Amino acid sequence: MTGTLILLRHGQSQWNLENRFTGWVDVDITPLGRLEAEAAGRLLLEQGIQIDRAFVSVLKRAIRTLWITLDEMDQMWVPVEHSWKLNERHYGALQGLNKPETAAKYGEDQVLIWRRSFDTPPPMMAENDDGHPGKDRRYKNIPIEKLPVGESLSMTLDRVLPYWRAQIEPHLTAGETILVAAHGNSIRAIVKHLDGMSEEEITGLNIPTAVPLVYRFGEALTVLDKRYLGDTAAIEAAALAVANQGKANNE
Amino acid sequence: MTGTLILLRHGQSQWNLENRFTGWVDVDITPLGRLEAEAAGRLLLEQGIQIDRAFVSVLKRAIRTLWITLDEMDQMWVPVEHSWKLNERHYGALQGLNKPETAAKYGEDQVLIWRRSFDTPPPMMAENDDGHPGKDRRYKNIPIEKLPVGESLSMTLDRVLPYWRAQIEPHLTAGETILVAAHGNSIRAIVKHLDGMSEEEITGLNIPTAVPLVYRFGEALTVLDKRYLGDTAAIEAAALAVANQGKANNE
Repeated sequence: MTGTLILLRHGQSQWNLENRFTGWVDVDITPLGRLEAEAAGRLLLEQGIQIDRAFVSVLKRAIRTLWITLDEMDQMWVPVEHSWKLNERHYGALQGLNKPETAAKYGEDQVLIWRRSFDTPPPMMAENDDGHPGKDRRYKNIPIEKLPVGESLSMTLDRVLPYWRAQIEPHLTAGETILVAAHGNSIRAIVKHLDGMSEEEITGLNIPTAVPLVYRFGEALTVLDKRYLGDTAAIEAAALAVANQGKANNE
Repeated sequence: MTGTLILLRHGQSQWNLENRFTGWVDVDITPLGRLEAEAAGRLLLEQGIQIDRAFVSVLKRAIRTLWITLDEMDQMWVPVEHSWKLNERHYGALQGLNKPETAAKYGEDQVLIWRRSFDTPPPMMAENDDGHPGKDRRYKNIPIEKLPVGESLSMTLDRVLPYWRAQIEPHLTAGETILVAAHGNSIRAIVKHLDGMSEEEITGLNIPTAVPLVYRFGEALTVLDKRYLGDTAAIEAAALAVANQGKANNE
């Protein structure tokens, strides 16, 4: 018995559109993002995919994408587990800044390093910042010292993967079909792990918004195959657009 | 530390509107039902209510009502547990029939008994019926002999209350604020239990659609107070309308 995994990055968010560092800011998806999520649901439905269980971050752009997708599939009843471990990379003091603002404040070169490096964290968010996760009720059960206030991609991986192993993998081993609705960098963490990618490969990988990425597994969770659902040319164009707009779109 | 419970019946469904026995048929809410759910969310938001956890049936009229309510409250991230134990009363072979059809098939007097009796079940659904829950993937983990194919109100209570005690009560005892989005009869089961109502009282109680019913508890889950949120006159009018349209609206 082998499981199936569908990874789904949220549809276009308002700050993807404005090219701002979003991180843990709880920005909603745009009308286009909603259409993208509907299209994802239709693609999954056409494939006859029957979800057993879904996992999602605690950020509304991923949750709304999940809801719309499940609605389109007429599978609103599937059990859903929310976890902050699937949240986007925390972008520290950069959250809320757009590209020109960030460049003006820190310099172009430094911004490029934060974006392209695997393990350089952004400047940390101050504890008195209004956006500090310790001030947000949804994180109240997490010890303050465990709450990220700025993460490198590497640090994001380090919190996603233990959750992946403990909460998601056992269901795949049991043969379930699992949908994970999350973010550019939490999905990168999972893809790097599953595909055995190098640090360089994963920092170069762009995850298109709301295109279902389907993995099928054999024994011991070996990857049998991996594919994006939908029109290959359109997906490549979307990934290229993400890359060209600057990697803020993955953030 | 004492908990708070919000009971929320789903907004108007298509078959409430057509006055059909709905039971476990997975009918959606109407545009009016969506507006009702939005209004419920706004009322809860205005009261400053912060949900810790939500429980919902596996039927989309309750799930969509929950989603719209949580969205309106900007609390989409709260953990949600889905359970068939919170489903509407299973209406057996009557499911899908409207009032005149049922009366023509079984006679007015018999229909009145099914509607008003506490413990008379409807005719059971045949195992080869397309609507048999054993054919629905969402119930696949439930042993076939435990799946209802026709319930009296009493039988509905008997499956709701063990779930209530095991899954919901402990969170209230721990002081949490709990939202339960469900159906006329699964909510009646909880209200009968909490208010110590007689069988006669509970069969005479109409739960208005999408009006939040808030219980506050003291020690040992004694009920401190109970109230519907919103305009009292409007709520009474709504409950009266439910009663006047025939009790199919609670079913």
